[in-house]
Amino acid sequence: MSASFPYHRRIQFAETDMAGIVHFSRYFRFMEEAEHALWRAAGLSIAEPTHGWPRVAAAFDYKRPLRFEDEFDIHIAVDLLTTRSIRYACRIECRGEVVAEGSMTIVCVERTADQTMRAVPIPAAVAALFTPA
Amino acid sequence: MSASFPYHRRIQFAETDMAGIVHFSRYFRFMEEAEHALWRAAGLSIAEPTHGWPRVAAAFDYKRPLRFEDEFDIHIAVDLLTTRSIRYACRIECRGEVVAEGSMTIVCVERTADQTMRAVPIPAAVAALFTPA
Amino acid sequence: MSASFPYHRRIQFAETDMAGIVHFSRYFRFMEEAEHALWRAAGLSIAEPTHGWPRVAAAFDYKRPLRFEDEFDIHIAVDLLTTRSIRYACRIECRGEVVAEGSMTIVCVERTADQTMRAVPIPAAVAALFTPA
Amino acid sequence: MSASFPYHRRIQFAETDMAGIVHFSRYFRFMEEAEHALWRAAGLSIAEPTHGWPRVAAAFDYKRPLRFEDEFDIHIAVDLLTTRSIRYACRIECRGEVVAEGSMTIVCVERTADQTMRAVPIPAAVAALFTPA
Repeated sequence: MSASFPYHRRIQFAETDMAGIVHFSRYFRFMEEAEHALWRAAGLSIAEPTHGWPRVAAAFDYKRPLRFEDEFDIHIAVDLLTTRSIRYACRIECRGEVVAEGSMTIVCVERTADQTMRAVPIPAAVAALFTPA
Repeated sequence: MSASFPYHRRIQFAETDMAGIVHFSRYFRFMEEAEHALWRAAGLSIAEPTHGWPRVAAAFDYKRPLRFEDEFDIHIAVDLLTTRSIRYACRIECRGEVVAEGSMTIVCVERTADQTMRAVPIPAAVAALFTPA
Repeated sequence: MSASFPYHRRIQFAETDMAGIVHFSRYFRFMEEAEHALWRAAGLSIAEPTHGWPRVAAAFDYKRPLRFEDEFDIHIAVDLLTTRSIRYACRIECRGEVVAEGSMTIVCVERTADQTMRAVPIPAAVAALFTPA
Repeated sequence: MSASFPYHRRIQFAETDMAGIVHFSRYFRFMEEAEHALWRAAGLSIAEPTHGWPRVAAAFDYKRPLRFEDEFDIHIAVDLLTTRSIRYACRIECRGEVVAEGSMTIVCVERTADQTMRAVPIPAAVAALFTPA
């Protein structure tokens, strides 16, 4: 994942739980934050009126805990692009050690007036930007 | 606040922080959960396509901590109703002791096609249901 | 997963995001809430001074969105028990349809005075309660 | 509040709700993030083994909504220091406009072996750093 996009962050107090470490559900938000930073770096916003990008799968393997005020890096990269889905690989590091590794798959939907979502192919302009290295 | 609406809940693990107690920001979600239960009990949903109910003020005074698996009650009541706003008073109790007291003021807005919000008077049907005792 | 433990819940407003649906990271909290209810039903609490239960893996596949005020069920069951780990299978249902399927693996650690965590075998009393059907 | 400490942030997707704006409870986390950045800038960490800093009051008045990807500033300053409490004033700004104004009061407690918290005077070294301008 050498060509992955790096995103730097610090752990906030409200992200910890009574075990004294970051709650495992938070890592999915870290992965999503890095995803959106990746989109911004590509000149895009994941939130636009016409399309939506629901998640169809998400997973993490946890190696080491993160704690309050830890500074850490989230590396994210597109590792699979199909006509209708984007899969990301994600690696979280802190002080040179791997903290967790995750993945997330999103699809593209058209927003309709009645609030339903209909799956559609990924727009070519988006696909062009996210072709895996 | 004897006529207040009671809402019962248990503290979840993810609601605690590294101090071993419930994070102070969570109480605002408890107050909102109780508000929405109050609306449902009145036959209403706070989420409808035409109107929105943004919060213009919210406050809590904290007396005692809440901890994981504590069962507690949120008592909420409308204590001020004006043409354009509803103010709630809220009291959180656990094992017969007051844990926190809060308040929250909401206003009514019309949702427009361009996603802006315009303040409007509270619909009569809603006002009728929430006149303070 | 017919012998799974059922846990019933309603979606709260703060659990939605600007896409109008429940944020995907929330499902991991739902799974954990059901896990802790399962432990309580077995006469245990997952939070005790001597041991901790960090998560080493967690995953969800998402089939349908959940929305504000939806009532849903979380079915959780132990589907693999080893000397040092417990793996849960989880299925979320709403109005008779499968919304998401997930899994989560936890290990047992001893809490030490200096706040480090050392992996230990699962206590026999706990293992006895969670042997898969 | 001219001498206040500035903290810069961007709104993340998971901080929005189905109304399309940032959930009101999030502002309390923003205020706390800025508080901890203020402590770090003073060479302190709010999380240490011997003392804790529970919140006894917190409040916000909301003027304008924040939305996904908005960049905003949180200005925080100590505006009242007593023997046993610190009160902060907080102002959130986005694009040159005031978004919200809040306050938060914390007290100092000693952590004891049995996990109870006992109120104590604020350590002199901390008080010296946070005397209002």
